[in-house]
Amino acid sequence: MKQVIVITGASSGFGALTARALARSGHTVYAGMRATTGRNAAQVEQARAYSQEHGVDLRSVELDVQSDASVKAAIERIVAECGRIDVVIHNAGHMSFGPAEAFTPEQFAELYDINVLSTQHVNRAALPQLRKQGRSLVVWISSSSARGGTPPYLSPYFAAKAAMDSLAVSYAGELARWGIETSIIVPGAFTKGTSHFAHAGAPADKARAEEYANGPTADFGEVAFKGLAALEPPGANPEAVATAIVKVVDTPFGKRPLRVHIDPSEDGAEIVNSVADRVRAELLRRIGLGDILKPSAPGGRRQAPSARADRSRRARPE
Amino acid sequence: MKQVIVITGASSGFGALTARALARSGHTVYAGMRATTGRNAAQVEQARAYSQEHGVDLRSVELDVQSDASVKAAIERIVAECGRIDVVIHNAGHMSFGPAEAFTPEQFAELYDINVLSTQHVNRAALPQLRKQGRSLVVWISSSSARGGTPPYLSPYFAAKAAMDSLAVSYAGELARWGIETSIIVPGAFTKGTSHFAHAGAPADKARAEEYANGPTADFGEVAFKGLAALEPPGANPEAVATAIVKVVDTPFGKRPLRVHIDPSEDGAEIVNSVADRVRAELLRRIGLGDILKPSAPGGRRQAPSARADRSRRARPE
Repeated sequence: MKQVIVITGASSGFGALTARALARSGHTVYAGMRATTGRNAAQVEQARAYSQEHGVDLRSVELDVQSDASVKAAIERIVAECGRIDVVIHNAGHMSFGPAEAFTPEQFAELYDINVLSTQHVNRAALPQLRKQGRSLVVWISSSSARGGTPPYLSPYFAAKAAMDSLAVSYAGELARWGIETSIIVPGAFTKGTSHFAHAGAPADKARAEEYANGPTADFGEVAFKGLAALEPPGANPEAVATAIVKVVDTPFGKRPLRVHIDPSEDGAEIVNSVADRVRAELLRRIGLGDILKPSAPGGRRQAPSARADRSRRARPE
Repeated sequence: MKQVIVITGASSGFGALTARALARSGHTVYAGMRATTGRNAAQVEQARAYSQEHGVDLRSVELDVQSDASVKAAIERIVAECGRIDVVIHNAGHMSFGPAEAFTPEQFAELYDINVLSTQHVNRAALPQLRKQGRSLVVWISSSSARGGTPPYLSPYFAAKAAMDSLAVSYAGELARWGIETSIIVPGAFTKGTSHFAHAGAPADKARAEEYANGPTADFGEVAFKGLAALEPPGANPEAVATAIVKVVDTPFGKRPLRVHIDPSEDGAEIVNSVADRVRAELLRRIGLGDILKPSAPGGRRQAPSARADRSRRARPE
């Protein structure tokens, strides 16, 4: 079934690949990016050419995830043009590389803004529509770093992605009874095939970074990155992430997995998340909220709160 | 051995309990808090009285974790008075309660600031001193929510604590060769005995919060909190967290645990973290950085980077 999809950060990387793959699968895809008439004008033109060449419905939309006004305008345009939004994909993200101590608090805040607050801007703009429709889907592009093994020197990014994954899990439960399903995509490190690593930011405090570069940590700058790259099997391809997302979107409502891992390096996130998602399910059942492990079908959200209240009384301490 | 310790957020809760317990154990403890001459003047007086009554060395220090200038002044005062800082304890934190969708991005940013950027302010002020000394310790008060089961309606807090835990793990590796040890304390939910839950912030978007209160999620506000409280066995006491921290501080350098869980409700974080810390160790060994799983003894940090370079070459892709 043809779905209306918006994806953030779609000018490059996983975002651009996924937008194209979803369009090829027959969906109407809004590729969100900022500066559509400025530095991403070429990306807009490429998307238009791609759409025409393949006879698919791929549309670029101005969407700066750090701006409330820009996000609102993008969501309003989509609803105006299509009358609905079936799928929101949180993909926008940015990385930085260097010793934790050499990043200023402002740099940490900026990474949080791009990787996490971005999703909150989009959710607050889009969720009223998704809740009204029901049978809709939110997809989060998390990172294996949130739960897998991690090398040094990526701390502001790792912290932000851990927060983003946590937020995805919170939303999954809070949206379930509104008929909104959640899938969390967990890519491992793809050091080649996207510009994610090449575009990584650097610490603002150069003097502090120098201390680490000239101290006992002198090799970290090289080992951390090369180590990650060495774990990657030959042929690891970020296209696999796009393929996994298409599969999730094309799975019927209520049957989609909470998580999908695409981690050729096997950094362990899949094992940790299996345990973590299981203890989450256990806790929700223990407090009488086991139903929110899966989204309610339409109509379910109109269930009288009084029926729930019984369960809440059982959960109360004596 | 008497150590010089600074702990943030020590006007109440875990912080106040821990500051007193450490002072009783014979250490010089700086209880960091803001507004020492304003709304926390009573807490300052209580700490002074406690110190005198018990013949211990508990000192209050003005330390607003959200202000770079305040943090710097506090650290400078401690070094001026004692000539050293042996232990930094990141404890300051704040919680909020309500539907994720009803919190503004600014509220999410504010929670990140208090719970995460706070530690970055303190680290950037204190770590040069700790690195110079070696044989020092950083303690992080994380939360079982970062890896355990989580109820709805605590998303900005859970996201921030997940980020803080991730940052603690990054710092653990990056500081090890500088002779700095890391211990992460993981308390479960203590809904009684501190004002953590009572002081929780509320969503700014009241209209959106109302939709959740009047929708299929009507019972969440009660079930989420009561459910957590119901999991807590009778007699769960936040003093256990303070006791655990004293034990960590009093353990010899190099022998301290990376993590200590104090979770009477058994929400599963201990199980998930055991797996997560293991895959982290595995990844660090695979990329040739197994040595940073434990802090180097003084002198170790002067090891020539050339010795490390061999390992980094081995880790490179062919």
